Amino acid sequence: MPKAAWIMGSDSDLPALTKGIKLLKDFGVEVEATVLSAHRTPNEAASFAALARDNGFEVIIAAAGKAAHLAGVLAAYTTLPVIGIPMKSSALEGLDALLSTVQMPPGVPVATVAIDGAENAAILAVQILALKYSDLTKKLDEYKAAMAKSVADKDKKVKQEVTML
Amino acid sequence: MPKAAWIMGSDSDLPALTKGIKLLKDFGVEVEATVLSAHRTPNEAASFAALARDNGFEVIIAAAGKAAHLAGVLAAYTTLPVIGIPMKSSALEGLDALLSTVQMPPGVPVATVAIDGAENAAILAVQILALKYSDLTKKLDEYKAAMAKSVADKDKKVKQEVTML
Amino acid sequence: MPKAAWIMGSDSDLPALTKGIKLLKDFGVEVEATVLSAHRTPNEAASFAALARDNGFEVIIAAAGKAAHLAGVLAAYTTLPVIGIPMKSSALEGLDALLSTVQMPPGVPVATVAIDGAENAAILAVQILALKYSDLTKKLDEYKAAMAKSVADKDKKVKQEVTML
Amino acid sequence: MPKAAWIMGSDSDLPALTKGIKLLKDFGVEVEATVLSAHRTPNEAASFAALARDNGFEVIIAAAGKAAHLAGVLAAYTTLPVIGIPMKSSALEGLDALLSTVQMPPGVPVATVAIDGAENAAILAVQILALKYSDLTKKLDEYKAAMAKSVADKDKKVKQEVTML
Amino acid sequence: MPKAAWIMGSDSDLPALTKGIKLLKDFGVEVEATVLSAHRTPNEAASFAALARDNGFEVIIAAAGKAAHLAGVLAAYTTLPVIGIPMKSSALEGLDALLSTVQMPPGVPVATVAIDGAENAAILAVQILALKYSDLTKKLDEYKAAMAKSVADKDKKVKQEVTML
Amino acid sequence: MPKAAWIMGSDSDLPALTKGIKLLKDFGVEVEATVLSAHRTPNEAASFAALARDNGFEVIIAAAGKAAHLAGVLAAYTTLPVIGIPMKSSALEGLDALLSTVQMPPGVPVATVAIDGAENAAILAVQILALKYSDLTKKLDEYKAAMAKSVADKDKKVKQEVTML
Amino acid sequence: MPKAAWIMGSDSDLPALTKGIKLLKDFGVEVEATVLSAHRTPNEAASFAALARDNGFEVIIAAAGKAAHLAGVLAAYTTLPVIGIPMKSSALEGLDALLSTVQMPPGVPVATVAIDGAENAAILAVQILALKYSDLTKKLDEYKAAMAKSVADKDKKVKQEVTML
Amino acid sequence: MPKAAWIMGSDSDLPALTKGIKLLKDFGVEVEATVLSAHRTPNEAASFAALARDNGFEVIIAAAGKAAHLAGVLAAYTTLPVIGIPMKSSALEGLDALLSTVQMPPGVPVATVAIDGAENAAILAVQILALKYSDLTKKLDEYKAAMAKSVADKDKKVKQEVTML
Repeated sequence: MPKAAWIMGSDSDLPALTKGIKLLKDFGVEVEATVLSAHRTPNEAASFAALARDNGFEVIIAAAGKAAHLAGVLAAYTTLPVIGIPMKSSALEGLDALLSTVQMPPGVPVATVAIDGAENAAILAVQILALKYSDLTKKLDEYKAAMAKSVADKDKKVKQEVTML
Repeated sequence: MPKAAWIMGSDSDLPALTKGIKLLKDFGVEVEATVLSAHRTPNEAASFAALARDNGFEVIIAAAGKAAHLAGVLAAYTTLPVIGIPMKSSALEGLDALLSTVQMPPGVPVATVAIDGAENAAILAVQILALKYSDLTKKLDEYKAAMAKSVADKDKKVKQEVTML
Repeated sequence: MPKAAWIMGSDSDLPALTKGIKLLKDFGVEVEATVLSAHRTPNEAASFAALARDNGFEVIIAAAGKAAHLAGVLAAYTTLPVIGIPMKSSALEGLDALLSTVQMPPGVPVATVAIDGAENAAILAVQILALKYSDLTKKLDEYKAAMAKSVADKDKKVKQEVTML
Repeated sequence: MPKAAWIMGSDSDLPALTKGIKLLKDFGVEVEATVLSAHRTPNEAASFAALARDNGFEVIIAAAGKAAHLAGVLAAYTTLPVIGIPMKSSALEGLDALLSTVQMPPGVPVATVAIDGAENAAILAVQILALKYSDLTKKLDEYKAAMAKSVADKDKKVKQEVTML
Repeated sequence: MPKAAWIMGSDSDLPALTKGIKLLKDFGVEVEATVLSAHRTPNEAASFAALARDNGFEVIIAAAGKAAHLAGVLAAYTTLPVIGIPMKSSALEGLDALLSTVQMPPGVPVATVAIDGAENAAILAVQILALKYSDLTKKLDEYKAAMAKSVADKDKKVKQEVTML
Repeated sequence: MPKAAWIMGSDSDLPALTKGIKLLKDFGVEVEATVLSAHRTPNEAASFAALARDNGFEVIIAAAGKAAHLAGVLAAYTTLPVIGIPMKSSALEGLDALLSTVQMPPGVPVATVAIDGAENAAILAVQILALKYSDLTKKLDEYKAAMAKSVADKDKKVKQEVTML
Repeated sequence: MPKAAWIMGSDSDLPALTKGIKLLKDFGVEVEATVLSAHRTPNEAASFAALARDNGFEVIIAAAGKAAHLAGVLAAYTTLPVIGIPMKSSALEGLDALLSTVQMPPGVPVATVAIDGAENAAILAVQILALKYSDLTKKLDEYKAAMAKSVADKDKKVKQEVTML
Repeated sequence: MPKAAWIMGSDSDLPALTKGIKLLKDFGVEVEATVLSAHRTPNEAASFAALARDNGFEVIIAAAGKAAHLAGVLAAYTTLPVIGIPMKSSALEGLDALLSTVQMPPGVPVATVAIDGAENAAILAVQILALKYSDLTKKLDEYKAAMAKSVADKDKKVKQEVTML
């Protein structure tokens, strides 16, 4: 069973992440959620990342706001792919978190998704895991088809509403 | 042998990408470079992405500037992981390309790296491929060690120069 | 009768667009509203744009938020004028959608209006259609006169209120 | 013969516009270039726009930098479609011109293209004029095909260069 | 009696301006409020500014949001000092209005105050009028003294509250 | 006993500062709160800073919003360390205050913390005072340990909640 | 003879200001240039502003870059109109100086012109002085006419060049 | 003798830091320069900070660009004051480094100075060290006096040059 670590800087981030975590579980990925802070528990964060591969994790997702160092710090200690979610938790609407997460120096990438983009972090994790767990590819195809179906449904609804304007 | 597609919006992007492409090759990944434009060759871009998995590609890297739709458009047609490199080719220093690449809607992620971050796109691709090709993990460890060594060398040099100030 | 396509990325955009759609209808333009996503229904979006001219559309309006690729993707498949409305649906207040919509590469323009500028998309569409349907010019003149009248009315109201300060 | 007005705020803008003006002429559109300033020659700008339709113009292109009011001021006096090009002539890299051009209030749109986007202003003008001058549609198709061909050529060149890395 | 024109782009701006208008009246300045739009009533705006000096106005205050051309357009038609207030009425929190107001080209200045800075527009107007109406200088000194007094009062209150923390 | 001055531009800033002031007191630092305005009480601000060292202050904290000159003006009159807190009190979400506080010219630094970062101003003040008052170092260690403990507690809570998703 | 103070934060600002200073002199205004720093010579800056009115100055122009406090600090000590020029001398292209200059708190305005807008500071100063020195009004009219003439000349030149494209 | 650590993310930062390092030495502070990367040598960075107090350091200065995590990561492992210098080494002109450095979460401050503000980092370090090493206070007073003297010299030079305009 594929296994992912979902790290967040604070429990206050959880509500904005729940949909993404559930989505990842729905794909059949084992998700271990952990609160770790690059600044308040730096040793724990370092250990977690350094041991992540040995502990069976295959991808790491990290969500943090403001000067969002969490994803970058984890990436420093592991060669697993690290997906970063910049959280909109500051005065600057997440722009600070976005730049702090994405503008990593050469050699230590963070795969950054949209501000508050928990669902996309989940899908990206599944896309990555699908390289090894080929059954995930079929699930991704079904998910893509369901999205297209949902757009088609919305299209019908909108067409009706607009006709009545 | 692992196989990656490296797409760029224009041949004018190549010089800024060369270092990253070479790095990816050095890791033993087969790289197929392609010029495709989301806006000028939309059909070709769509076909490429739709057939990418069947053609043996396991990860796609896409570099584009300005209203950088390329990575997102490719991601629309495939469930392979798509890595986006925002290029600094506009008046706005790449901020437009960054936002156009990273702010993808739920369901269709692009793994975005830094502006002009070709080397990080390469490393991220290797980290992803390492899930399936486990020998890449060892190479990533060696790369990380070499980076650390290079910092240590620079440290010696700087210490000498600062002593003489 | 002039005919316009009004595309939106999601039905959640409709409330912010209603005023504009109604305005366009009020000018006597046939409006066909459609939900299409550049990322979730890329094939449908491509087909729609590729066939738009043959299907009698003379101008396309496309509204999308975040990494707003919709207008650009439609423009890639048609030579009809495409008007883009960046929607304020993200953490970044629509700045991402604005840059994703307006910063198109040479050769594939999107006629971009203000963030959430549905009414201006409608008026711009009418101005374009007026080249062929000359009765629209008179209606535009009347609309302009009505706007001026409305300002004059507001002027009276403000003058009174300020006198009483 | 279709006829367009190409207004610029200063002769210093001409070099950045030349490619676009030539492109518009190449499509067989009669182009009348004019230097007009919303702030230094407001009366001339107002007259020009007010009389533009009677003088046979069918579309207006306006390029200006900094607090770029030119396109908006022209749009205030005419119901012709006005295409605005924000010029990168200021300390702020054209962001000021972009916002000054695109953020027009309801009722008076400016069809804004990319910063320094003279070529896209030309193509957008042709797309608009094609509603009335149907032979332009064929030329637009040829232009689109030539763009795709050019991408294909660049693809070959890049493939060769990358093979040799 | 000194006389100022206070122009606003829409009556919806009035609530955010009231405090400033009242302040200007309190200094004994005659204030004529007017709703004028650079885009919806361009002729009226032009006439107003062109005749402002002859009509006895000595300073013009203009408040507008989004692509805030109003102050700049008025300044184009008069040599009276024009004070611009960028209004926070858009998705972009007034940044668009600020840049549209302040980044005027050489030769046609707008004296720009803070976003939503109606009170400062009033005080600046009084400072300007004081050059001619010297009794205003004494009133400005009293106003400055009252501000300092108010800070001293707040200081006492804060000191008490902090002691009790 | 160590002694710090906590200056704010207005009493309206107090609620956003209370937590930080209390934190500083909890470390056993004597805190004198003062309302001073760089613009409304410039003489008082200048005197306060010029005499601060003689009055026994060892560090100054200054909080201000918009064009936040307060910290910089105080720093101009003293060689004590001045910590600046940019307050999010404007249309621009504190970006103006941040740039006004941090971008000081060579020779006159302001130690800037995050927007609305009152707690970090307090901790930074304690870190500075700890150079002289060595018992503060132990308290800082305990504070750091308590933060790590709090993260561990949150981790347990999140792990439980995520298990139940 | 009207008299203006032109303050700058450093002699390195002079080249970017020369054109504006000369322009102000050309209008027959006596200009006293002074280097004063809000942060390095705060006492001198305070004295200068406090005594400016008594020393015969009627308007103050202040140019500064980065955290540009100069204009605001001068405005704190005087009730003369203070015109602020944000200088583009920093990494952030003058955006920091613009926000530091324009976002003044209620009661203490700075009349802000464009980034590096020395000429507009000069013209604004003349417009203000013209309230008292009525001969300046005629000179302003001539200046405005000359600007319009210059645009007309450029128009001819551009028309020729475009014809030959 | 007071002792400071000056950390930089890369030797390429040294030229922009030299003036600041020399200034700190000129004040009689022992400076140990070190190249450490939060991402390439995370263990070394962690050790350095964890042991910094025991190794006799009393203040840490850290300079880094892009997603500048260095100062924040060091601050996570020590209770010494950490001064952060955001370096202008990226496409985004240092805005990314500024936000990554200053927007630290509650409890772990970084004393941030201006972009490329090495001299201010040095002066801030001296101001902090002066709490313990009281002779530094006198040197800071002399430095402040020398700055004022330098402004006065520049004033004379500018006055002469402006007279001749």
